[in-house]
Amino acid sequence: MKLNERGLLIVISGPSGVGKGTVRKALFEMEGHDLVYSTSMTTRSPREGEIDGIDYYFVTKEEFEQRIKDDRFLEYAKFVGHYYGTPKDKVDEQMAIGKEVVLEIEVQGAAQVREKARDGVFIFIAPPNKEALYRRLLRRGTEGTKTIQKRMDKADREFPLAHKYDYIVVNDEVRNAADRIMAIIRAEHAKTERSIYKYREMLEVK
Amino acid sequence: MKLNERGLLIVISGPSGVGKGTVRKALFEMEGHDLVYSTSMTTRSPREGEIDGIDYYFVTKEEFEQRIKDDRFLEYAKFVGHYYGTPKDKVDEQMAIGKEVVLEIEVQGAAQVREKARDGVFIFIAPPNKEALYRRLLRRGTEGTKTIQKRMDKADREFPLAHKYDYIVVNDEVRNAADRIMAIIRAEHAKTERSIYKYREMLEVK
Repeated sequence: MKLNERGLLIVISGPSGVGKGTVRKALFEMEGHDLVYSTSMTTRSPREGEIDGIDYYFVTKEEFEQRIKDDRFLEYAKFVGHYYGTPKDKVDEQMAIGKEVVLEIEVQGAAQVREKARDGVFIFIAPPNKEALYRRLLRRGTEGTKTIQKRMDKADREFPLAHKYDYIVVNDEVRNAADRIMAIIRAEHAKTERSIYKYREMLEVK
Repeated sequence: MKLNERGLLIVISGPSGVGKGTVRKALFEMEGHDLVYSTSMTTRSPREGEIDGIDYYFVTKEEFEQRIKDDRFLEYAKFVGHYYGTPKDKVDEQMAIGKEVVLEIEVQGAAQVREKARDGVFIFIAPPNKEALYRRLLRRGTEGTKTIQKRMDKADREFPLAHKYDYIVVNDEVRNAADRIMAIIRAEHAKTERSIYKYREMLEVK
């Protein structure tokens, strides 16, 4: 029995190349969960086959900028001329019906989200060591040594930010990392601050 | 990979009749854990077959009282003329070698432990409702209606103390409750405050 019926906002972050996407995928493949992806909002045009509200929420530049003014994003960024952001109200709607909304996001974006959603669950995915990160970036095979070195330097600047997260999960084995995140989600629901309201109701505690 | 190698102190508490013992037993029957019971210290004489250091640490009254003076108990109480207590150093020794020390204890005792071990993980086991607690006390068959009513009154005084715990776990189904406690243990190890030291070492973060 779950005392907290509201879904959680699960923010999965960490340096580029750490395997955030792979871990998130393994997490969604697990059984018996209520996880959903957060759908981003963007001003770029839909590509062939992309569906509004599923792949992205497609809006105009004016609409997006109005939303920024109204503080309706958990985070947003401009990327080659287009805006991308996480709409706060859409996330809230999902959480209200008990969905755990998973946000897989870069370290800078996660810091923005923390400002707007203090009760989110922030998980920093760490490599087991620097060599592992380097090898993973190399294995992608899409980038030159110079770009990879840049990413390693960026990771070195991001590593110290882990202390701002609630949890640190090492991606030594994808399955282990996903298991641990699932445990975190279960534990977070049992936290007293989240479950005390329903608990009091249930046992008629004044 | 576990970033925190020190074991945790897991305090399982809740009103009499809530099923603490059953949940703890189910927890120990699960696979792949490093759980150990905390062994109590007592001044009563060993019964037939009881082994010192396994069932209890058997000590003299003088030894016990000296330990009280030296603040070497996480909690203690006197019960029909004999002392019973949880020796702090023995618990620490186990935690140092990576064991999760489980303490199943009454609500008053848990409050004492909280004073001495702030970094313990405090879990309040709650019944799904008052009737369930009543039925469970009745089912034991060892107590009269008057004693049961006394226990219910005591539970009513203990329910409001749940807010001092880190987690509230409902014992609707023993297996569910044990699963959730196991998730809590896994999550607690990943908490940033527990894992940041090894993390920094691992990734050479200054």
